[in-house]
Amino acid sequence: MEIAELGEFGLIRHLTEAIEIKNPETEKGVGDDCAVLHYPSERKLLVTTDLLMEGVHFDLQYVPLKHLGYKSAQVNLSDVYAMNGRPRQMTVSLALSKRFTVEDLSAFYEGLRLACEGHSCDIVGGDTTSSLTGLAISITCIGDVDPSKVVYRNGAKDTDLICVTGDLGAAYMGLQLLEREKSVYNAQVNEALRQGQKPESLPPFQPDFSGREYLLERQLKPEARRDIIEALAKADIVPTSMMDISDGLSSELMHICSQSHTGCRIYEDRIPIDYQTAVMAEELNMNVTTCALNGGEDYELLFTVPLTLHDRISAVPGVKVIGHITKPELGLQLVCRDGTEMKLKAQGWNPLKEHQ
Amino acid sequence: MEIAELGEFGLIRHLTEAIEIKNPETEKGVGDDCAVLHYPSERKLLVTTDLLMEGVHFDLQYVPLKHLGYKSAQVNLSDVYAMNGRPRQMTVSLALSKRFTVEDLSAFYEGLRLACEGHSCDIVGGDTTSSLTGLAISITCIGDVDPSKVVYRNGAKDTDLICVTGDLGAAYMGLQLLEREKSVYNAQVNEALRQGQKPESLPPFQPDFSGREYLLERQLKPEARRDIIEALAKADIVPTSMMDISDGLSSELMHICSQSHTGCRIYEDRIPIDYQTAVMAEELNMNVTTCALNGGEDYELLFTVPLTLHDRISAVPGVKVIGHITKPELGLQLVCRDGTEMKLKAQGWNPLKEHQ
Repeated sequence: MEIAELGEFGLIRHLTEAIEIKNPETEKGVGDDCAVLHYPSERKLLVTTDLLMEGVHFDLQYVPLKHLGYKSAQVNLSDVYAMNGRPRQMTVSLALSKRFTVEDLSAFYEGLRLACEGHSCDIVGGDTTSSLTGLAISITCIGDVDPSKVVYRNGAKDTDLICVTGDLGAAYMGLQLLEREKSVYNAQVNEALRQGQKPESLPPFQPDFSGREYLLERQLKPEARRDIIEALAKADIVPTSMMDISDGLSSELMHICSQSHTGCRIYEDRIPIDYQTAVMAEELNMNVTTCALNGGEDYELLFTVPLTLHDRISAVPGVKVIGHITKPELGLQLVCRDGTEMKLKAQGWNPLKEHQ
Repeated sequence: MEIAELGEFGLIRHLTEAIEIKNPETEKGVGDDCAVLHYPSERKLLVTTDLLMEGVHFDLQYVPLKHLGYKSAQVNLSDVYAMNGRPRQMTVSLALSKRFTVEDLSAFYEGLRLACEGHSCDIVGGDTTSSLTGLAISITCIGDVDPSKVVYRNGAKDTDLICVTGDLGAAYMGLQLLEREKSVYNAQVNEALRQGQKPESLPPFQPDFSGREYLLERQLKPEARRDIIEALAKADIVPTSMMDISDGLSSELMHICSQSHTGCRIYEDRIPIDYQTAVMAEELNMNVTTCALNGGEDYELLFTVPLTLHDRISAVPGVKVIGHITKPELGLQLVCRDGTEMKLKAQGWNPLKEHQ
């Protein structure tokens, strides 16, 4: 069905009618000039926002819209967890070009709803408009946190342990894999066109993802680490600093050290890397540590805890200690497998440098 | 200066260093994964968001970036006032193509800051990224309101008075004027090119805006009606329903009547229209009432109050009573100057129908 048939208000009704409000703090969701929320004074509020642009942040040739909706939500949920908070409300704005159908949008919203339901987050509003070119997605997420437990980027102290969750570099390897299969497919189509064949006459394209499912999942269906925030609370641990890893470990460590006025020392052999990530890096002739340091889109958590909590933090599943905070004059150091030291550089994803 | 020289984080620092936090509820603005807010339980929160796309919502050929920043903020501030609230915080996301310079962005932010300062609203975060094509602007505004004074769209009652603020249709006429002068300019450039001249060799283009300054201001520099919200509070009036007029009076009246399950009856001769709007409509051979009903972008307030408040509301400067709410079975009626009645139709701006 064409979107123009429904119009803006019809479309919004269609997309939002299945939304259920779950948090008692949400008094009014979609349908007025503003959403209305009511929080008790005992909570602080967290607000984060992201703008995702077609061709820069996602490629619709290989990202299904349902996955895109799911991932767009996770990116924002992750920022709320990175403050040690819990997501509660989300607004979602979309700018669409003519090529999208109502079914496309329904798929996007299905993914979005699925992500929000899994994290008890209410969709409370947004804006749906048109775009002359690509798809634009803007999401704002509101969360709450116990005032005594907000974790900023600037609280790391000398000797604190540096911890990361999950493993790193897999989402980046998933992207390389998708880009490779896209090139293979496009080459087949171009060859068919060159020979005067119609691309539709080609046999269905079978991308080769076998044994790489984890990399694909990390790229297409990341999961914000609510489990870690819950586990930290259960272990009665409040990190001294925290942020989520979206641009790459190196870049995020630099933010924490620069805002905390410290240095750091991390160990290459402690950086958690999945087996599939290592195999894929080998296959592509890339340095796997570089991928883990600078790949981005991991949506894992990077945080620091006092040295005295070493045993307690080591007992939390999914958390790995990769180094420690140092005095600022020692700089940001990576201790390599062979014992040599090198200075960390932020080569992480910088949309304003890469795409212009 | 090129944006790539600064990079994402350098650009954000450059744009946000002049921002001052003014509201005590804002604990942490730009610079972490989330902004942190702390509101007392005695307030409810309001959240609104808008996504503005180049070529759909604005034309950079005649909208200066400073004005665009100013207007982008006002559009969101207006939604908070429409709930009878006060704006407090704003997040601003931008997706930029290569053609923008740091100076362009500074101009945009200058307009944005100016608007926020005038409405005591803190800029607390956002996202700055790249776009393969046009400029995309996404703003989320958070406000607060006394819980007993939130005004929704669904509270209008039979016999309530229908009120509008300011005058209508001027922003739409301003747009027509700008489009006309753009056509004149583009025709001159095309003619120069046809004759083998360089467009740079033409004398500077002098658009003819004399005597139309009000229309331009309404289109390029709208002002959200904080003054009205303050005047209503001072007069101890809480409207039964309210919304802001962004898509056109007809369209907004339909929202209020449909959500309140009522009809309405408004009088053509009471719709406030400025002299310049009337002259311009005459010149363009357009029906001025149609422009006032469907023009959009007025950012005035439409609200209803109980009939018993007639004298008090009439004493509030800038407010005009244009009709009254009726039983739903009477429908939405416009009483014309000649006494005939016609059904109101929403022909207001629908981005998903027009631009695809």
